[in-house]
Amino acid sequence: MPISDFLKEILLIQSVSGDESLVAEWVVNYVTQRKSNWKVAPEVYHGEEFHDCILLRFGNPRTAVFAHMDTIGFMVRYANQLVPVGGPELISGTRLVGKDCFGEISCKLVVEGDELFHDFPRKIERGTRLSFEQDIRVDSEFIQAAYLDNRLGMYPALKLCETLEDGWVVFTTYEEHGGGSMPFLLPFIQKTAPIKQALISDITWITDGVHHHQGVVVSIRDKFIPRKKFIDRIIQLAQQSEIPVQLEVEGYGGSDGREVQFSPYALDWCFIGAAEDHVHSPDEKVSLKDLDNMVNLYEYLLKAL
Amino acid sequence: MPISDFLKEILLIQSVSGDESLVAEWVVNYVTQRKSNWKVAPEVYHGEEFHDCILLRFGNPRTAVFAHMDTIGFMVRYANQLVPVGGPELISGTRLVGKDCFGEISCKLVVEGDELFHDFPRKIERGTRLSFEQDIRVDSEFIQAAYLDNRLGMYPALKLCETLEDGWVVFTTYEEHGGGSMPFLLPFIQKTAPIKQALISDITWITDGVHHHQGVVVSIRDKFIPRKKFIDRIIQLAQQSEIPVQLEVEGYGGSDGREVQFSPYALDWCFIGAAEDHVHSPDEKVSLKDLDNMVNLYEYLLKAL
Amino acid sequence: MPISDFLKEILLIQSVSGDESLVAEWVVNYVTQRKSNWKVAPEVYHGEEFHDCILLRFGNPRTAVFAHMDTIGFMVRYANQLVPVGGPELISGTRLVGKDCFGEISCKLVVEGDELFHDFPRKIERGTRLSFEQDIRVDSEFIQAAYLDNRLGMYPALKLCETLEDGWVVFTTYEEHGGGSMPFLLPFIQKTAPIKQALISDITWITDGVHHHQGVVVSIRDKFIPRKKFIDRIIQLAQQSEIPVQLEVEGYGGSDGREVQFSPYALDWCFIGAAEDHVHSPDEKVSLKDLDNMVNLYEYLLKAL
Repeated sequence: MPISDFLKEILLIQSVSGDESLVAEWVVNYVTQRKSNWKVAPEVYHGEEFHDCILLRFGNPRTAVFAHMDTIGFMVRYANQLVPVGGPELISGTRLVGKDCFGEISCKLVVEGDELFHDFPRKIERGTRLSFEQDIRVDSEFIQAAYLDNRLGMYPALKLCETLEDGWVVFTTYEEHGGGSMPFLLPFIQKTAPIKQALISDITWITDGVHHHQGVVVSIRDKFIPRKKFIDRIIQLAQQSEIPVQLEVEGYGGSDGREVQFSPYALDWCFIGAAEDHVHSPDEKVSLKDLDNMVNLYEYLLKAL
Repeated sequence: MPISDFLKEILLIQSVSGDESLVAEWVVNYVTQRKSNWKVAPEVYHGEEFHDCILLRFGNPRTAVFAHMDTIGFMVRYANQLVPVGGPELISGTRLVGKDCFGEISCKLVVEGDELFHDFPRKIERGTRLSFEQDIRVDSEFIQAAYLDNRLGMYPALKLCETLEDGWVVFTTYEEHGGGSMPFLLPFIQKTAPIKQALISDITWITDGVHHHQGVVVSIRDKFIPRKKFIDRIIQLAQQSEIPVQLEVEGYGGSDGREVQFSPYALDWCFIGAAEDHVHSPDEKVSLKDLDNMVNLYEYLLKAL
Repeated sequence: MPISDFLKEILLIQSVSGDESLVAEWVVNYVTQRKSNWKVAPEVYHGEEFHDCILLRFGNPRTAVFAHMDTIGFMVRYANQLVPVGGPELISGTRLVGKDCFGEISCKLVVEGDELFHDFPRKIERGTRLSFEQDIRVDSEFIQAAYLDNRLGMYPALKLCETLEDGWVVFTTYEEHGGGSMPFLLPFIQKTAPIKQALISDITWITDGVHHHQGVVVSIRDKFIPRKKFIDRIIQLAQQSEIPVQLEVEGYGGSDGREVQFSPYALDWCFIGAAEDHVHSPDEKVSLKDLDNMVNLYEYLLKAL
């Protein structure tokens, strides 16, 4: 599977939760340049009214696909202290990068018990966001890099745009740190072109029961439990599609699906995404075959659902 | 107190959170068959638009009664693993039942440290829900069975329908696993026939200060705290009614009341329900006298409030 | 800085979460008596429709200021047990006061391991709220008392009313115990005179990086993370104002800002407030200079934003 160039572009953009403006700008530019070549040119909603989120409406939607644009990372406190943003893997020596009013920053993460520090020789402005230094590694079987969660969720969402006739494709913010954009995006969607079902395009974990190269994961549950009727329908359609699929049953973890579950609308939802090794580290690793299955399953489901 | 036959019927239906369709179907049939004999025939709202919830509107409501229809249980993972749904008591050897595409399942719960397994000889489909095998025991003083939480909350709600003139009676889903139906039910109620107060018909715990046969429990607080003014009014009315009542003050636990508290409406709420021993086990045990008090207090309050 | 008399008045009112009616009544009376002398007389919204909250609308609002009126405390259980309301400091021997149907209560907090008791010789009615005995200490540098959190957040909000031309000033309830009033206040605000930004007038903590007399705190994050663009703008305006400001970066703690973050509106928010020592104890201590900076910064920002 050849990886589109745009995936490498978005892997190089930093977007720690709360500071998604650069990647949002990239998405808006990408959509603006490409949309006239797509099967259907979507209506594009973005700007301050939507904070840094972007909504693309194609035709008459029945389903929305949500992909979050933020990543985990760190925020600089004082006296060299760091506070995590979301749940990054805490490995001493991991290289972190960022930028403040004094210039570019490249330093190492220092873990001492429960406390986190950076080793940058000068003071860093309070509130500066740091994230893993990027190192993209692609071979014939795998892609390995930082931020695969959730650049590889954005990727199928953007590929889907090329052929989508009816549906919403929505790029969200804040997901890694408790959420907060879904609650205002959903009312806008329901007022503009309402849906009954939501698919969460995000990356999950390799587990005892989920392995590389075995197919895209359909999650029956994580910490939260979607309605059985809808999950059964997704599984049935996936089987009809003959696209390889793995079923996950987890007790932990959450996604933008959580905020669909607790929204003021009777919406069904399902998390569908490739599984990765080395979660929330600079070495997240995903099978290209699984990613390809993910792209194909989204295309199939948006037609079939 | 003679137990109505319909209580035994609903005690025999499985409805682990997210899979409430069978009990919902039962409620719709029950209501359809009986409603013309009730004092007021309610407007019935149900179907896909409401997922598996059911709303009954009687007259001009001031108050809504909420009773959840789901129960705790387990979900099958892989390699014989189980993941809890809600917070079931974890006792090795407890008998579990369910059904998958290969047929009926009856097995035992195996607890090994933090991990849960089943001992069923064949593989069970991923995502299959299991719940406690039912064993209903009734004597002159007590009812003991699985699923009393919340079949005994549904029971007073259904009895109330026989005489109710003004009010909503609402059957909800997902409550045992974080909720998610209240947020879409409340806007529907507020748009259709708005209320200012909500009563939660659910089952609580025997504690140091709450005992069998001493009356239905009015909860002053659990993990969450309803507004004092409303609780004071409930307590005053309960005293006027001369129905035996026990006041609970807890630091833990939640109910559908939580989602009323955090809803976009200024609604008062109160949890009112009998207390049980052996919570979330196959041996939940409730005093028939307390249950009778519960039935009577709901009837009294829906008139008086 | 001379402290207005009204601060002492509100410090003497008890208002444990869920029982805010007395302080709410005080605010309504205060506003009613003073508003004709203010630059702009606000529209006042209060009463049962808003539970015990109060909303003041001045002119054409762009920004809302939220100050919670409740305090932490304790609730009486049974057998002399107490359950915390919010997160009070648990120091054996602390003097607690309250009132039930039998009369006034003054007793001591008894801490035994994880369990809390009172030592009042007679039985106290279940559900009675107790809070720290008040002891107000003011010198030239500091104010020290119980309930500074959040009487010192109400104080700048009320001072602001004297000069405010455009904005909402809103007094909220339940904040110390998980919230629940913001979700119904925000829709009312957005329907009546919508805003794009919210400031949280509340009290924070002295930490390694935040000290007395160094300025009012602008919080870049607590447990939750507001949008960077908005925080950057606040910091820039604070610098222009030349009012001393300290920037906080915390991993813990929450405020009414949490419910703005998770609201169904794309609202930016920022917590701005003086820092205190001895948090949630009877000895909360705040620099008068920091409080003065807080008053001035709110006045400046409500014009500039």
